[in-house]
Amino acid sequence: MQFFSFWRSLASFRVRIALNLKGVPAEVVFVDIDADTHRADAYRKINPQMALPALVTDDGTVLFQSLAIIDYLDEIYPTPPLLPADPLGRARVRGLALIVACEGHPLLTPRVRRYLDRELDLRDSQQNAWRRHWTVETLAALEGHLAGHKATGQFCHGDTPGLADICLVGHVTAAINQQISLSPWPTVKRIHETAMALPAFARAHPSAQPDTPEAMRAK
Amino acid sequence: MQFFSFWRSLASFRVRIALNLKGVPAEVVFVDIDADTHRADAYRKINPQMALPALVTDDGTVLFQSLAIIDYLDEIYPTPPLLPADPLGRARVRGLALIVACEGHPLLTPRVRRYLDRELDLRDSQQNAWRRHWTVETLAALEGHLAGHKATGQFCHGDTPGLADICLVGHVTAAINQQISLSPWPTVKRIHETAMALPAFARAHPSAQPDTPEAMRAK
Repeated sequence: MQFFSFWRSLASFRVRIALNLKGVPAEVVFVDIDADTHRADAYRKINPQMALPALVTDDGTVLFQSLAIIDYLDEIYPTPPLLPADPLGRARVRGLALIVACEGHPLLTPRVRRYLDRELDLRDSQQNAWRRHWTVETLAALEGHLAGHKATGQFCHGDTPGLADICLVGHVTAAINQQISLSPWPTVKRIHETAMALPAFARAHPSAQPDTPEAMRAK
Repeated sequence: MQFFSFWRSLASFRVRIALNLKGVPAEVVFVDIDADTHRADAYRKINPQMALPALVTDDGTVLFQSLAIIDYLDEIYPTPPLLPADPLGRARVRGLALIVACEGHPLLTPRVRRYLDRELDLRDSQQNAWRRHWTVETLAALEGHLAGHKATGQFCHGDTPGLADICLVGHVTAAINQQISLSPWPTVKRIHETAMALPAFARAHPSAQPDTPEAMRAK
């Protein structure tokens, strides 16, 4: 199994956590988005969408989109499960994950930042305000669904980590990178700390990858 | 079961198609985004994220995020299935659906248009260029994955409609609303036409809902 990853990509971060939690080994291929390697022919042949991550199975099938990859891993390697056993629980966990994946993250991706910069010629202050706005809106949406909900436990859903936590920590990482204080969202803050204390999450962090530039590495 | 819907919402459109394909009756509650009804207390109590759609089960559980709702419906009402039976097929269909849901649609939503308009004060021509850019990028990503792929059939995956087709038709509807010609993406165009010829898709279209304004109704 080959896993195409970039240290800073928050969608790659999600799949790294899932692989770690499952204890599944994968050959990691580093794709440098900063050097436009994702737009070069070699990667384009693998994923015509030129987006990271991608997972190539041993029979050569290319899987794309981080949540689809994680769903696949959860089916093929069911232990530990990343989704609850009951349909209503699964719907809640998927819904929380999609708040991040379909609403927060898409507005913070490199291709959007490139558009704001090159096509709209926004000032740095406007670009920062854009990122902060959508980051905060998603933190608030997560807190609204998590705080006081009877299914929320040590993690987003009960006391074991799963798909929603995987997405939550990526989004909180984006917030921390922007120096956004998490105090208005105490449930999100608590779950992030609980999850990142686990080796499977910590080892997957953008600051700790083989392709992380020296200046960005955790000290 | 209560389904909170808005005629123009493409995420609501997705759930309407799924309900129609499954033949599942739901009491539809219309939430007028244009009148900010989604931000009023009544709906906020149901979905603190103030986003549409939402599905409330008979025991009062609130489901949110269209793809999570559709996954739930597919588990509870398995016929006809909206996902393939094999894990690799499911990953492909989920990946195609997520290209629309996580990358195309998020950049075209009312809250993003509001930000471009009010916070960035973009001219109409810039707003139109923004919408066209992300709409086209997603059409190209879909075509890249669908054209010539051995699993592509009459529909995105084989010869029966499923989750990927549900997302595809919503995105193509956004393209048609912008008068974007589909000729550069013939596979997407063909699948859209095939799907929209089915009553379950046609009856779910934004132009044919009880809350569709008279001027926007299909003639």
